[in-house]
Amino acid sequence: MSGMWGNNIRVSIFGESHGNAIGINIDGLPSGFHIDMDKVMVEMARRAPGKSPLSTPRKEGDIPEILSGYFEGKTTGTPLCAIIRNSNTKSKDYSKLKDVMRPGHADYTGAMRYDGFNDYRGGGHFSGRITAPLVFAGAICKQILESKGISIAAHVNSIGSIKDKSFLDVDINEELILSFKGKELPLINSELEEAMRQEVMNARKDMDSIGGTIECVVLGIKPGIGNPFFDSVESTLAHLMFSVPAVKGIEFGKGFDISKMRGSEANDEYYLDGKTIKTKTNNNGGILGGITNGMPIVFKVAIKPTASIFKEQSTVNIATMEETKLSIEGRHDPCIVQRALPVIEAVTAIGILELM
Amino acid sequence: MSGMWGNNIRVSIFGESHGNAIGINIDGLPSGFHIDMDKVMVEMARRAPGKSPLSTPRKEGDIPEILSGYFEGKTTGTPLCAIIRNSNTKSKDYSKLKDVMRPGHADYTGAMRYDGFNDYRGGGHFSGRITAPLVFAGAICKQILESKGISIAAHVNSIGSIKDKSFLDVDINEELILSFKGKELPLINSELEEAMRQEVMNARKDMDSIGGTIECVVLGIKPGIGNPFFDSVESTLAHLMFSVPAVKGIEFGKGFDISKMRGSEANDEYYLDGKTIKTKTNNNGGILGGITNGMPIVFKVAIKPTASIFKEQSTVNIATMEETKLSIEGRHDPCIVQRALPVIEAVTAIGILELM
Amino acid sequence: MSGMWGNNIRVSIFGESHGNAIGINIDGLPSGFHIDMDKVMVEMARRAPGKSPLSTPRKEGDIPEILSGYFEGKTTGTPLCAIIRNSNTKSKDYSKLKDVMRPGHADYTGAMRYDGFNDYRGGGHFSGRITAPLVFAGAICKQILESKGISIAAHVNSIGSIKDKSFLDVDINEELILSFKGKELPLINSELEEAMRQEVMNARKDMDSIGGTIECVVLGIKPGIGNPFFDSVESTLAHLMFSVPAVKGIEFGKGFDISKMRGSEANDEYYLDGKTIKTKTNNNGGILGGITNGMPIVFKVAIKPTASIFKEQSTVNIATMEETKLSIEGRHDPCIVQRALPVIEAVTAIGILELM
Amino acid sequence: MSGMWGNNIRVSIFGESHGNAIGINIDGLPSGFHIDMDKVMVEMARRAPGKSPLSTPRKEGDIPEILSGYFEGKTTGTPLCAIIRNSNTKSKDYSKLKDVMRPGHADYTGAMRYDGFNDYRGGGHFSGRITAPLVFAGAICKQILESKGISIAAHVNSIGSIKDKSFLDVDINEELILSFKGKELPLINSELEEAMRQEVMNARKDMDSIGGTIECVVLGIKPGIGNPFFDSVESTLAHLMFSVPAVKGIEFGKGFDISKMRGSEANDEYYLDGKTIKTKTNNNGGILGGITNGMPIVFKVAIKPTASIFKEQSTVNIATMEETKLSIEGRHDPCIVQRALPVIEAVTAIGILELM
Repeated sequence: MSGMWGNNIRVSIFGESHGNAIGINIDGLPSGFHIDMDKVMVEMARRAPGKSPLSTPRKEGDIPEILSGYFEGKTTGTPLCAIIRNSNTKSKDYSKLKDVMRPGHADYTGAMRYDGFNDYRGGGHFSGRITAPLVFAGAICKQILESKGISIAAHVNSIGSIKDKSFLDVDINEELILSFKGKELPLINSELEEAMRQEVMNARKDMDSIGGTIECVVLGIKPGIGNPFFDSVESTLAHLMFSVPAVKGIEFGKGFDISKMRGSEANDEYYLDGKTIKTKTNNNGGILGGITNGMPIVFKVAIKPTASIFKEQSTVNIATMEETKLSIEGRHDPCIVQRALPVIEAVTAIGILELM
Repeated sequence: MSGMWGNNIRVSIFGESHGNAIGINIDGLPSGFHIDMDKVMVEMARRAPGKSPLSTPRKEGDIPEILSGYFEGKTTGTPLCAIIRNSNTKSKDYSKLKDVMRPGHADYTGAMRYDGFNDYRGGGHFSGRITAPLVFAGAICKQILESKGISIAAHVNSIGSIKDKSFLDVDINEELILSFKGKELPLINSELEEAMRQEVMNARKDMDSIGGTIECVVLGIKPGIGNPFFDSVESTLAHLMFSVPAVKGIEFGKGFDISKMRGSEANDEYYLDGKTIKTKTNNNGGILGGITNGMPIVFKVAIKPTASIFKEQSTVNIATMEETKLSIEGRHDPCIVQRALPVIEAVTAIGILELM
Repeated sequence: MSGMWGNNIRVSIFGESHGNAIGINIDGLPSGFHIDMDKVMVEMARRAPGKSPLSTPRKEGDIPEILSGYFEGKTTGTPLCAIIRNSNTKSKDYSKLKDVMRPGHADYTGAMRYDGFNDYRGGGHFSGRITAPLVFAGAICKQILESKGISIAAHVNSIGSIKDKSFLDVDINEELILSFKGKELPLINSELEEAMRQEVMNARKDMDSIGGTIECVVLGIKPGIGNPFFDSVESTLAHLMFSVPAVKGIEFGKGFDISKMRGSEANDEYYLDGKTIKTKTNNNGGILGGITNGMPIVFKVAIKPTASIFKEQSTVNIATMEETKLSIEGRHDPCIVQRALPVIEAVTAIGILELM
Repeated sequence: MSGMWGNNIRVSIFGESHGNAIGINIDGLPSGFHIDMDKVMVEMARRAPGKSPLSTPRKEGDIPEILSGYFEGKTTGTPLCAIIRNSNTKSKDYSKLKDVMRPGHADYTGAMRYDGFNDYRGGGHFSGRITAPLVFAGAICKQILESKGISIAAHVNSIGSIKDKSFLDVDINEELILSFKGKELPLINSELEEAMRQEVMNARKDMDSIGGTIECVVLGIKPGIGNPFFDSVESTLAHLMFSVPAVKGIEFGKGFDISKMRGSEANDEYYLDGKTIKTKTNNNGGILGGITNGMPIVFKVAIKPTASIFKEQSTVNIATMEETKLSIEGRHDPCIVQRALPVIEAVTAIGILELM
């Protein structure tokens, strides 16, 4: 009761890191929509590893194969299923780790949930690799939203202690969004890029990893989208965000900082911009009562540091029920924030399409 | 497509602040469960206004009437519907505000969502009052969970700038939980109570309001509860939390702070406590890969300051499409954090029961 | 996991025959729809007992009270909940039957399903009385459909051995539909009315009951509504029909008779009626591949004879686990087909609105 | 909003007859269940064409490839997705039929539903071929049910005018069920086999097709499974049955015949068989109030004659909007009742597992 989501746009995900294939079935797409596959592949490439020292050097040849729902370059309206074959998987790296639980990973919780029958190789169904199909699905949803004048963009809000500006503090315009294109570390204040890289390289040097935050914006959405109980815009997006491995928090608008404010500061006062009702501030992140008010939807998510680290850690062997030490070998991402960007955008696109 | 939630335990909510009644229909309850109605009423009373200067002096005689699914003091297993009649509602207070949008409220978004046909009186379906049925449903779920050894407790983590300790920094035991009972401001460090009260009173004196944060814990839950995609424990709880008016953020375990950590700090190392696998820290808040690891589930939510304030604010009249000024009269809560506590506990109980 | 249904239009039902109230919460209604309450009451009255010798003489004062979602005579778009108080309930009639299972009723299956904790009085949640809220919800959906040019009508297709014509054999026009209005036994061949009444009166005289079939038509529906897997028009309507107590079969178009046909007979050949594509026959009942083809949707349901009969029957006492005899006293319907007509129309309306 | 179904056991189907592959994603399977792949292949083979003159001579090499959720011969508990590659597809047979609507097929309704963008080749997503993944999923569910003592079996109840006995008229025992194994036309009265074959061959000789009915039984199910509103056993099974192409009716127990009965005949009287409560008759097909009573679940479905026939038919060309004639060439099944048997059993297995 977990692998499927949505009512209007439904996704059904499957796959394990070292199984035959991973994939996603998408139902509820409009028929006759032309998918720009180049754009889809750009999104896939953003998530793919192996591009810079910030990520794992492991390469993935992630070419999705569309099995259904796509005919003569357009969606048919029937379920669109795409799969990605697993390759370049060294199962032997993992077999010895079957019983020794990696801290910060889902090894132990997965073993408990599935009574030890889950595919443990490379994290199995819990692997970050399973987000590739989400990016695929999200890339299609993004294109559909773009055709309706809605764009979604995310930037690295922080890595470790290096913190970028917030969308709430600047004028969010198309120029800013475009400046993110093609960047591994899209930033509002692009001068911070080097410091952020250094933060990651320092963690890497220490055989460690580092976390960060991502801020995402939805531009061009009309007022009146969403619901009070129980499918608010926040509920819908948060539900999806917490399906993305490593996400541990989400806040809309000023989020946790709004809790320190007075009402007179926090309330977004209305004014007229020509015939359009706008708010002077956007502390509520474009959402009131679970429904959009026409201002940009702005939210941040917290990404925890990569759980796989070379540093030795204490743990337990669940077969022998003995305490032991563990150093995770292989190829790790010292930081996954930059690779999580397209995933966050993707699930945002899925969520917004669901709400419309 | 909003008023119903859940698969195993389903709730269906209804009502407006100034309509005939508000209520909830709960489906999926076990049959033959004896409901302790006194305990239910204790939870209802915690949410009720009018008890102290921290809240609005408005009184609500919130006696739920069970219409169905309850026979000879026990649940029948068929849908249990309860309603609460609205009374003490002064509709005339609100009628003049039909067109003048209150900043921070859902007046404008509601008007957009429902094309102006929603019941605007007192916030209508967006009123915080609609959380009363949630507390009722949650109180029953809580009792069911208690019968399985699971307890849920929340404390005020902060009001304005006054910040309590976190569950992550102390030994969470039944004694601590019991110390919260009957307190308007349950705190880990109870010495902060006076300062918090003062924070609220200061806001009130300034004809303003103040926000805060709530931290909640689920104790006694077994490992292996939850799912990876898409119904993780975090997804499920976050979905429900963002249905509660005024919630603008949620974080599990260390939440946003984990994003500043190194992997070696953030990863919760395993050890053996007798035959039980535990973690030395609980930075992940008891959840890995969307599934419980047996440690307490710990999360925080951000509550924004009460939107209703006496202070004059700028806004727009949507009938005349003119800018105007507004000062909200009537009885307001200078702070709703303390009243939100039982609501957060209630939806947590509903969410945990859904996952089990 | 049973009392709620739907994705676009969601209904949540509750209540027991002898509890405080029965009711329904309807979510997903459009906002601003003016409900004609007189028309709703006409539908409620059609289902109500006590009008003629064909039904039980028991009277029900079924005045629904709308609790929410309805403001100034129009729907608000938020959940609309309505309840009907139970009155005129003689619980003492039933208490002695707690342990003696009535054949044909859900006494035994309910006791098994809910471990004996269900409200057994008068059938409890299984009572035909619980269809009253369905009729209420359906009456609203019917009005919404009418505003889109879609009308729904049912006639008694048979009672016992007396069989009316089928919609498939006549020209279905508004005149025919209008001729059904106000009739207890609407028939295509109205000359059969007296014979049908006699069929019921004979059963009644024998302290027995009699079943029948209902045929229902949906007129004015456009082609292209519905889905292949898994939410075909047939799936959606059948799902709802089998929620109505006493329904034991459903067939679309020629239904079971189509199984005896050759393909050349069964296939509905296309022709052009001006610029409209129509079929010469309607053996498929307006549905192909789960999707409407623009022809009237036509289906029949089988209604079993009233389970409550005065005649002595063999049964088992589940408390003593002994075989025993039972004669059901009180007020029974010798036939419920005529009272089921508005229920079948109501759930049809709910189902069609869901699909659109 | 159509390709996914279920709450406890969820299936998500995809594919078109002439696309890359068809398949199904199954979520909610227990972990650690050993799948007997030989048994799965037996079910697949039963549905496959090309085995006898009763079916199309077209061959399908339907070897499902499991992509996920299956590790070391057992289910992992995470989504199990399997695909079947399409081959032996002569697309050129169909291209000329893009605009000429085949009577009895979903060509026209599909074009309306998907605005002409659906994959029309070979019926596309509406093709009976899409039932192959359902048989795969059902074969797994069947094995799970068998491990709980529940068995499902179907026989041909009629083809054209040749009618077998009903399960309701005989003693349903394991011996009878076993006698069905390996038979193309499993019958209670096996003497009818030759007459049935002749019925099909006659239709074939006339370049026509013939329909029939299937009767299915679920043995070994405990009392107390199912729900009143809205997920009765009947609702759940009917919903799935009407997803199977060509099904036009379903009836439980005596079904439509019960409508001609008196209550005293129709009511299934209880008696004690040792300590087990049973009914003397099974007119209600093992279900009362939507819930099992412990008697075998028995139902019949009506299968319409194959829509594809060689005989010339009248139709419309939707591109030119002109009436035209059509004779469908290629390889057809003169009767699909025998091939539908494993499909009906499969969706029954999915439905029963959902309800448990």
